[in-house]
Amino acid sequence: MTTSTKPPSGTRDFLPDDIRRREYVIGVVRDVYERYGFEPLETPAFENIETLLGKYGEEGNKLIFKILRRGEHEASGEADLALRYDLTVPLARVVAQYQNELPKFFKRYQIQPVWRADRPAKGRFREFFQCDIDSIGSTSAMVEVEQVSAVCEVLVALGFSDFQVRLNHRQLLAASLSVAGIAVERHGEALIIIDKLDKIGAQGVLDQLTSAFGHAAAADCLAAFAPVETSALDALDLLSAGFDGNEAGLVAVSKLREIVRLSQATPAAPYLRLDRSLARGLSYYTGAIMEISVPDLTGSLGGGGRYDNLVGMFLGRDVPACGFSLGLERIIVVMTERGMFEKVERGGVDVVVTFADEGARTAALSLAHDLRGLSVRSADIERRMRAETYPDISKKFDRVWKHASTRGAVIVASVGGSELPDHVGLRDIRIQQRIPSVTKELAASQIRDLVQVAFLRE
Amino acid sequence: MTTSTKPPSGTRDFLPDDIRRREYVIGVVRDVYERYGFEPLETPAFENIETLLGKYGEEGNKLIFKILRRGEHEASGEADLALRYDLTVPLARVVAQYQNELPKFFKRYQIQPVWRADRPAKGRFREFFQCDIDSIGSTSAMVEVEQVSAVCEVLVALGFSDFQVRLNHRQLLAASLSVAGIAVERHGEALIIIDKLDKIGAQGVLDQLTSAFGHAAAADCLAAFAPVETSALDALDLLSAGFDGNEAGLVAVSKLREIVRLSQATPAAPYLRLDRSLARGLSYYTGAIMEISVPDLTGSLGGGGRYDNLVGMFLGRDVPACGFSLGLERIIVVMTERGMFEKVERGGVDVVVTFADEGARTAALSLAHDLRGLSVRSADIERRMRAETYPDISKKFDRVWKHASTRGAVIVASVGGSELPDHVGLRDIRIQQRIPSVTKELAASQIRDLVQVAFLRE
Repeated sequence: MTTSTKPPSGTRDFLPDDIRRREYVIGVVRDVYERYGFEPLETPAFENIETLLGKYGEEGNKLIFKILRRGEHEASGEADLALRYDLTVPLARVVAQYQNELPKFFKRYQIQPVWRADRPAKGRFREFFQCDIDSIGSTSAMVEVEQVSAVCEVLVALGFSDFQVRLNHRQLLAASLSVAGIAVERHGEALIIIDKLDKIGAQGVLDQLTSAFGHAAAADCLAAFAPVETSALDALDLLSAGFDGNEAGLVAVSKLREIVRLSQATPAAPYLRLDRSLARGLSYYTGAIMEISVPDLTGSLGGGGRYDNLVGMFLGRDVPACGFSLGLERIIVVMTERGMFEKVERGGVDVVVTFADEGARTAALSLAHDLRGLSVRSADIERRMRAETYPDISKKFDRVWKHASTRGAVIVASVGGSELPDHVGLRDIRIQQRIPSVTKELAASQIRDLVQVAFLRE
Repeated sequence: MTTSTKPPSGTRDFLPDDIRRREYVIGVVRDVYERYGFEPLETPAFENIETLLGKYGEEGNKLIFKILRRGEHEASGEADLALRYDLTVPLARVVAQYQNELPKFFKRYQIQPVWRADRPAKGRFREFFQCDIDSIGSTSAMVEVEQVSAVCEVLVALGFSDFQVRLNHRQLLAASLSVAGIAVERHGEALIIIDKLDKIGAQGVLDQLTSAFGHAAAADCLAAFAPVETSALDALDLLSAGFDGNEAGLVAVSKLREIVRLSQATPAAPYLRLDRSLARGLSYYTGAIMEISVPDLTGSLGGGGRYDNLVGMFLGRDVPACGFSLGLERIIVVMTERGMFEKVERGGVDVVVTFADEGARTAALSLAHDLRGLSVRSADIERRMRAETYPDISKKFDRVWKHASTRGAVIVASVGGSELPDHVGLRDIRIQQRIPSVTKELAASQIRDLVQVAFLRE
């Protein structure tokens, strides 16, 4: 016993309640995405290392988990594989590989864990799930609109109403920096500073921008990236004027207006905001970018954008693409803190069957089997019962009782022993006492009725 | 475009139909295991490397994927983490870690991928899913009986009827080898040869045993491990006599009889067979061992057994345990070859909505949204419709038509353009022609009726 029994740093074991919550959220996500016509796709946990390197910027490269070569090559200390870092780069590879099998306009969703060797912190893990949708093969704003609509429908279906979808455009960012007098080759540097607005505040950003670009440029930047108080459409109308003569800026503003205008016909309408400071870290975005926030969470519930060049890195010719990723862990954290998980069904069992002597084991197995074949139902759901045999004879009934309570059972049924012959003894866990025994023939159906009553009361 | 776009050797990308088949099987597995009272559990994709090393024997150690240390330690070429190799060792760690939170008698199921650096071959992958059940905390034969019963119920629910659950016991194997005159310290060596029975046949095994242990011992071994033609109970009755005086052998026979006798009250009854040559490779088994086979597959659909010492390696004191693992890939391979996937619902969409001019985009989005809110139903299921907008105006209708066919759509609905004003044009994909257009107000409900008819016909 020299080994630690904790999971590795930054990872978690998921006990039953964790999994039920996650499965509930995934079920809602999947249902909405399927109704929007997204198809499921999954890729391996690891990729050839060259597939991932160079796709996530300098910082990203350092956070990739690398897998040692095997066999005789192990001693070389070299890595040839790497764990999935996001779901977008593997998708780009898949689109290139299966170009003749996939529809020209291809929409997929993908719900899988990714791994990043980030420093673990509250709510930041090294293994976490992403739920992505991506649409490949069209530059139409309809793509962004449908994705934002689907994401909003997911959040509403989960019970959220106070979220914002913040919207910006990579070319609008670039144009704003150029207008502020920052040279194109230093845009990246400026964006890294601006991206810290959430963390270090306006004054912090102003200080860092000033020391890098001088006071005038810094002030212009900060003014351009100040919070937008009006509706997104009003803000965009005002903006058109400010980019007179800046072609890229005008195109970006016009694309964003198209997205916002068309979104008025979708469930996303109430949630869209313009956020001119939104940058999104990943280096592959080329057009509109989006991010979802709620008041009680630093950081986002998800985000996405258009990346028209990434597929080309694998395919040799560019294919337009746009995607949106929801962070499952963060959604679950907020839902847990807000008590939004009422609808998740409890686990455990309905009935624990015990036996008083070894001769009664067959009868116990039969009763458990019969119970599993019967159903309980409410207005919403019908499900078959869950029953287990307690495997050992216990002199102390306390132990069985404790087990049955832990498992959330309604009834403990006892076969054999000092009960009336051919009867099954019953104990109701909730009132903590014996109730009249029943004959073996009627046992399954009577126990079912007792569980049914409890099921309706839940 | 220098990078290969194939998934890494031994791994696969899962396209939509693959995932639907897998989700269908997982749904059946989960339903049965939950009704038996197993609770879901998941562990991280990687473990601290010392958690895994030394648990799977010499061969197993070599097949573990190891993850390079990160940051400044990367250059050392050392590994500190390793990918999950099975679901049993992580469970043993979890049981040790959460001993105060988990019930004393704990049953869990776990459905996750594992990774082994095996040489890829037909049906053998480096990333594959296991579906495990394990029961921790009891030595009772009821544990084995309930697990075998649950596994049989899964297979029957999937549509299998011609499988066998082959049963043996590690101590019976040992006793048989001792009776044949093979010294205890050479049992491992003999078992590795006997385990090849499926691959190299009786003569091959006899030859290898003879050259290792001499002719007499080899012949005795082979006789002891010959196929059992009678029922498991009859075979076990006969066996009792043969182990007169061999305490371990008698205990093993008696345990197996208990398992088979009790199983007569469960769905496993028709499927149990004694197979005295069954060895199971993994080194942690200590008692009964089981393996499932079907006639048309070399290798097994799954297997398991009792391992009463493994948890002790993490906890410092032994805790009895028994588990069963189903191999998802192999189940899917056999089901696919046999055409057993009729029940899996098709993916794709029901309706593709197109627009003839940019002004009609809002109407197209609204119609798609309305369609997604309506349901179609059959005797078995009710589900909401799947609808998507085709994002671009296409002069060539052929392209939309092809897309809609690929997506399995029933109807293409066209908004705007040369249709009657305020009408939606309809095309029925299955009869490949236009059908009468409908007014916008009635469009959603009339399209729903058309999809409903197609849905019932499927």
